[in-house]
Amino acid sequence: MNHHDTIVALATPSGAGAIAVIRISGNNAITIASNVFQSVSGKDITKQKTHTLHLGHIVDDNKVLDQVLLSIFKGTNSYTGESTIEISCHGSTYIQQQIIQLLLRKGCRMAQAGEFTLRSFLNGKMDLSQAEAVADLISSDNEASHQIAMQQMRGGFSNEIAKLREELLNFASLIELELDFAEEDVEFADRTQFYELLNRIEFVLKRLIDSFAVGNVIKNGIPVAIVGEPNVGKSTLLNALLNEERAIVSDIAGTTRDTIEDELVIGGIGFRFIDTAGIRETKDVVESIGIKKTFEKIEQAQVVVYLIDGSWMMEVGNENLKQVQIELEKIKNQFPLKPLVIIGNKADKLSENQKEKIKNEIPSILLLSAKENIGVEDLKNQLLSFVNTGALRNNETIITNTRHYDSLLKALEEIQKVQYGLQSNLPSDLMAIDIRQALYYFGEITGQVTNDELLGNIFANFCIGK
Amino acid sequence: MNHHDTIVALATPSGAGAIAVIRISGNNAITIASNVFQSVSGKDITKQKTHTLHLGHIVDDNKVLDQVLLSIFKGTNSYTGESTIEISCHGSTYIQQQIIQLLLRKGCRMAQAGEFTLRSFLNGKMDLSQAEAVADLISSDNEASHQIAMQQMRGGFSNEIAKLREELLNFASLIELELDFAEEDVEFADRTQFYELLNRIEFVLKRLIDSFAVGNVIKNGIPVAIVGEPNVGKSTLLNALLNEERAIVSDIAGTTRDTIEDELVIGGIGFRFIDTAGIRETKDVVESIGIKKTFEKIEQAQVVVYLIDGSWMMEVGNENLKQVQIELEKIKNQFPLKPLVIIGNKADKLSENQKEKIKNEIPSILLLSAKENIGVEDLKNQLLSFVNTGALRNNETIITNTRHYDSLLKALEEIQKVQYGLQSNLPSDLMAIDIRQALYYFGEITGQVTNDELLGNIFANFCIGK
Repeated sequence: MNHHDTIVALATPSGAGAIAVIRISGNNAITIASNVFQSVSGKDITKQKTHTLHLGHIVDDNKVLDQVLLSIFKGTNSYTGESTIEISCHGSTYIQQQIIQLLLRKGCRMAQAGEFTLRSFLNGKMDLSQAEAVADLISSDNEASHQIAMQQMRGGFSNEIAKLREELLNFASLIELELDFAEEDVEFADRTQFYELLNRIEFVLKRLIDSFAVGNVIKNGIPVAIVGEPNVGKSTLLNALLNEERAIVSDIAGTTRDTIEDELVIGGIGFRFIDTAGIRETKDVVESIGIKKTFEKIEQAQVVVYLIDGSWMMEVGNENLKQVQIELEKIKNQFPLKPLVIIGNKADKLSENQKEKIKNEIPSILLLSAKENIGVEDLKNQLLSFVNTGALRNNETIITNTRHYDSLLKALEEIQKVQYGLQSNLPSDLMAIDIRQALYYFGEITGQVTNDELLGNIFANFCIGK
Repeated sequence: MNHHDTIVALATPSGAGAIAVIRISGNNAITIASNVFQSVSGKDITKQKTHTLHLGHIVDDNKVLDQVLLSIFKGTNSYTGESTIEISCHGSTYIQQQIIQLLLRKGCRMAQAGEFTLRSFLNGKMDLSQAEAVADLISSDNEASHQIAMQQMRGGFSNEIAKLREELLNFASLIELELDFAEEDVEFADRTQFYELLNRIEFVLKRLIDSFAVGNVIKNGIPVAIVGEPNVGKSTLLNALLNEERAIVSDIAGTTRDTIEDELVIGGIGFRFIDTAGIRETKDVVESIGIKKTFEKIEQAQVVVYLIDGSWMMEVGNENLKQVQIELEKIKNQFPLKPLVIIGNKADKLSENQKEKIKNEIPSILLLSAKENIGVEDLKNQLLSFVNTGALRNNETIITNTRHYDSLLKALEEIQKVQYGLQSNLPSDLMAIDIRQALYYFGEITGQVTNDELLGNIFANFCIGK
């Protein structure tokens, strides 16, 4: 990939809309644009200031392709850090095509996926973890993942890593200086301070590594197994949870997302509901297989919702109630540490006496009516209580990227080697190797250390035009 | 609809992309934007110049929603003719929703379909026919329809109508002046000049009305009936026609349109191919119905393509060739005026002798091979020759809008009444009524005469955000 030519791409979603934006970036962006743009006021756009907007026409020979607004970003004052032009044209796919084809003929090249952001990184406008956050930001579809991506894009994570790296680098220099004076057996690096720094770095790395569990869950949604027979009201419950959130966005035409079955956003956190067959006691072989599968799914889930028809529970004396208690015991025995939400649905069909009786037998049960939308809010709160949003609330850095996670794990390993070396009075030259290695992994995260393959992998996941 | 409040909408296509643009227009646009925008350089955007761009963050209380570029258009220097802000944000649907919701909470109202363009019309930035051209421009998907919409949007049609209207208005004033002096029997309006003007107006109106046939065909595509049995190579031919055009756009990722079966753009003109069952001679009742249907479809088409397997034609002596000639006679007898293209496909299987023999029998036949892509270009040229693109080439005004067509027809009727009145020495007061009526219909086209229902109908067809 040549990083010095001028690239062009559609930056807005494909398809027809009121307007579309075509982005050009590179040394010749402004010259090429000036060849196809005629300002209505006759201005020469190569002589205009940065960050100005100009009304005019895109003209191919004598044929007017469209009336457009042209944005000029000069020098390093742009997203990519190089001259950039944005053409805001009418949003017909025909016009988009025609203008891009014209620009290709005039010397632009089609941008590859993520190439604008790649240039931004290469030109030092953002580090690698910030660039990666741009893709996360675009794909984020709930408050939590949006907030983490936003924080990372604004450099929260990079700053933390960069600070540790710098401190470690200082010590590395001192220790490497010692090597030059090896025969004199001097210690430039204060071992106590160094020990203290290594502990601090270890603490931060461990915290970041731990945060990946939360980050991963927030990025990919929290898996919730719903254990429940057919007809206990599973889909009514999901709809009740869904509809309330939907109502918020429904009056904004054109922005409502397609329904993703069994995937809900509650309080800004994504939940993935995994349907199971239930675990009713049986001697049937086929049904036993069903129970086995249910247990497998519970294994994968982070929270278990046990959903039962409250009115059915009260049907034949105490028999059904007892069966529920047996099933619950089974789940608790099998997964003693897995958070469990017990729901008695169809509570609207129960008398106050019946409700009290159920609560006496199963104190932690949540009686609700999905149909009548009674108690659904309580369920939401209970689900959210299982998410460790402490870090999120406290604005702590959360890792969501597997690549960062891997580098942090490797960096931690090296730091622990250094700690061990320090304790066991390892020679400085050996310690220096481990420190260099730790620095390398820090650099991998922010992009001080990089290679074409790594960059290729990262930016291939971007959309074209970003 | 209140036209004084501040409206907001997503202006780019819905869905995720690199960036999205949210447009705000109205008296409070800049104030509302300044409440949610924090410039990175700390600038107060209410004090910035028009047509400037500013990098900053959209902030909801203390929560940063996104890093955005904000465009400022002040006073009447905007698309709508009122203060306008465009926010170019990261293209996640979540961010789009969040920013729009925030702006709604801060005092904006969701824009209705076409409301930005409606305001542009109401604020005198464009006339009604120009506003209508905006929607045509966005929906145009080929060169011809794009060119017509572009010309109309730039005022070509309006100017022509406005000029005629003005001249007519002058005479109307003189004639109405005569009414004030009715008892004195004076003639302020030169009858010879007036007669000449009416003839000129009649000529222009007739030309515009005639152009509607071309315009309609260009806007909606030219219907072409393909008469041909199965296996003569119909779909191969359509693919051959399609692929060549496709190749032009295929290397621009993200801009390729979805395939619309049997609808092709050839040389910038849309063609709609109507598949028919063929008209083979038969005594079978069911097949006779098929022939009847084929004739019905030919009736609707503007061009007939008779497609035959050239190699089959040569199979059993002269029998198949004769059958083809009988069928062709039938079509020509039934539709003597309908342009007919006769194609012998699979010419690659024919010897030179066979080709010559076929051409001797059917001189107008076009022998080609859709599979080998031989002769397809000739077919394209022949199809294009049936389109009256003269007007298009000569940059003449072409009417594509049914509403304009209706108004022009009515205006012509009134002008002809005035002409008749002039010839038969009708009293000025009666003529004045017809002139007023003609002026009314002219005004309907450009929007000098309008009402809420008319505007509602026109702008309901726009997309939201335009």
